[in-house]
Amino acid sequence: MVGSPIIPTLLVVLDIVGTFVFALSGAAAGVKRELDVFGVLVLSFCAATAGGIARDVLIGAVPPAALNDWRYLVTALIAGAITFRWYPAISRLRNPVQLFDAAGLALFAVSGTQKALAYGLSPFMAALLGMLTGIGGGVARDILLSEVPSVLRADLYAVAALAGAVVVVGGDFLGLHSAVTAFLGAVVCFVLRLAAIRYHLHLPIARAPIVQDDVPKRDHT
Amino acid sequence: MVGSPIIPTLLVVLDIVGTFVFALSGAAAGVKRELDVFGVLVLSFCAATAGGIARDVLIGAVPPAALNDWRYLVTALIAGAITFRWYPAISRLRNPVQLFDAAGLALFAVSGTQKALAYGLSPFMAALLGMLTGIGGGVARDILLSEVPSVLRADLYAVAALAGAVVVVGGDFLGLHSAVTAFLGAVVCFVLRLAAIRYHLHLPIARAPIVQDDVPKRDHT
Amino acid sequence: MVGSPIIPTLLVVLDIVGTFVFALSGAAAGVKRELDVFGVLVLSFCAATAGGIARDVLIGAVPPAALNDWRYLVTALIAGAITFRWYPAISRLRNPVQLFDAAGLALFAVSGTQKALAYGLSPFMAALLGMLTGIGGGVARDILLSEVPSVLRADLYAVAALAGAVVVVGGDFLGLHSAVTAFLGAVVCFVLRLAAIRYHLHLPIARAPIVQDDVPKRDHT
Repeated sequence: MVGSPIIPTLLVVLDIVGTFVFALSGAAAGVKRELDVFGVLVLSFCAATAGGIARDVLIGAVPPAALNDWRYLVTALIAGAITFRWYPAISRLRNPVQLFDAAGLALFAVSGTQKALAYGLSPFMAALLGMLTGIGGGVARDILLSEVPSVLRADLYAVAALAGAVVVVGGDFLGLHSAVTAFLGAVVCFVLRLAAIRYHLHLPIARAPIVQDDVPKRDHT
Repeated sequence: MVGSPIIPTLLVVLDIVGTFVFALSGAAAGVKRELDVFGVLVLSFCAATAGGIARDVLIGAVPPAALNDWRYLVTALIAGAITFRWYPAISRLRNPVQLFDAAGLALFAVSGTQKALAYGLSPFMAALLGMLTGIGGGVARDILLSEVPSVLRADLYAVAALAGAVVVVGGDFLGLHSAVTAFLGAVVCFVLRLAAIRYHLHLPIARAPIVQDDVPKRDHT
Repeated sequence: MVGSPIIPTLLVVLDIVGTFVFALSGAAAGVKRELDVFGVLVLSFCAATAGGIARDVLIGAVPPAALNDWRYLVTALIAGAITFRWYPAISRLRNPVQLFDAAGLALFAVSGTQKALAYGLSPFMAALLGMLTGIGGGVARDILLSEVPSVLRADLYAVAALAGAVVVVGGDFLGLHSAVTAFLGAVVCFVLRLAAIRYHLHLPIARAPIVQDDVPKRDHT
């Protein structure tokens, strides 16, 4: 993402904004669980960078950009420190944070997809990796706190990321300029996610039938 | 695994079958936890591919086969969709699923070991990585659902995978044809796992002595 | 770490000691949760090697040293077997184990930082990766047991690792001999961690304000 030649300056700026707001979400989760200041900063960094790190490891771009470019770390630490110091104010900012979170999701999904395409992955898999870049941070944050990742539960969260990634892949296939498809992809993801939050759009949920106790304590993976 | 020149066509077929049944187990776990359809599909894909992805990252074969070969994704999604739609029927199929699960474990352990050998790892470590390929999917599924991985608890689950991997390594050392050792390794793993399920074979369990509260809430890693 | 040309023999010895004590901590955690003997050994190996494996994957040194060098595996298995067999005695040894654990943390943080520097990472990121090497094993152990990683909670645990790593990076910057900085870094980490245990030093903890139920069950990452 940052530092990659294919990502123009505008996207770098938005990428850092995305890092910032994802770090806010990690730090806020850590404060809620009453971690000490260091634990809060670790969660900030993980939430902000885990998606990009996973993507870079999977495509062989090591060391990952998030570890090579100090701007990620500094951005995440600033967001964590702000949250730690002014948590009451941050928690009152809930709607703006959700707004930025949706923006971060959109940007990471788009830049992740473009980086995967630049590394020669198939369009199919580039979209998957773009989605992963968007959602990976939240997964890492929730696993560290021993919770079921909320991206598996939140309304159209991963779906919005996938939609943005698909737009980027489609634009690439049609030969559109990468800035145009990045913009379109980000807008699609952003709008879809905001609409899901506002109108509580969600996908169907499977209803498990009568629970036959078919998974005894031991055995039966 | 699939796509690797050392894996003959028969193994590709069985590998896809293994992907399918592991995806069923992930999807069923997701339905039980009442995830939405997207969460169920994510769990299908993770359970089916996490072991292979971890192995490929560890031996430097990136991007991992499971991300480069669309057949894995499609197979996992089909299994997830079937489970989501027909969960009551699937849950009634418990014994056949266990049968296929054991088969998948056997095949992944064998093909994982062979791929690790092909990448020049020592026999010792190839067996470890083969076992990892077999059990990794279940670990990822359970961690995402915030549960202690059942492969750490199930009767002779990981041990069966390790036994199959050791047979492959031993056959390789003796210069046997890879198809022969693959077949033998898979049979050993499969039979051992089925016997463990049927007769509740298991390894000794340590009994913790009187619980001295020696791990206070804070400190003491 | 072990096997890397930049790590002198003394560090190899101490590295193996670190592997041993971290494996003890993983095995003890597994016995407490009443895993079978295989689960206990898996936890031993994970706690002893996960940090080094993560570091090696992130810097592109695959296959990771912990999978390529049989001494890690054997050391971890011996520690796990001892714990499984003689858990009552081990649990009485709590203070010595904590002592060795602090020593292991110190050594892993130091050797991890030196390896990252040798692979050309910036001083900033080498210190981060050194810290990761020290704490990664505990994180893996706790995630496998579905617990919030205690390194996020323990008194000055990660901070001590970071301090040791920073000393190594600083010494490297000043051109000091690597054995000297390794020694100094390890001592700083070790003393800091022991002091934190003895005097319950800890960093400030954020207090979450009145819990407004601002994270409903669904949506809102």
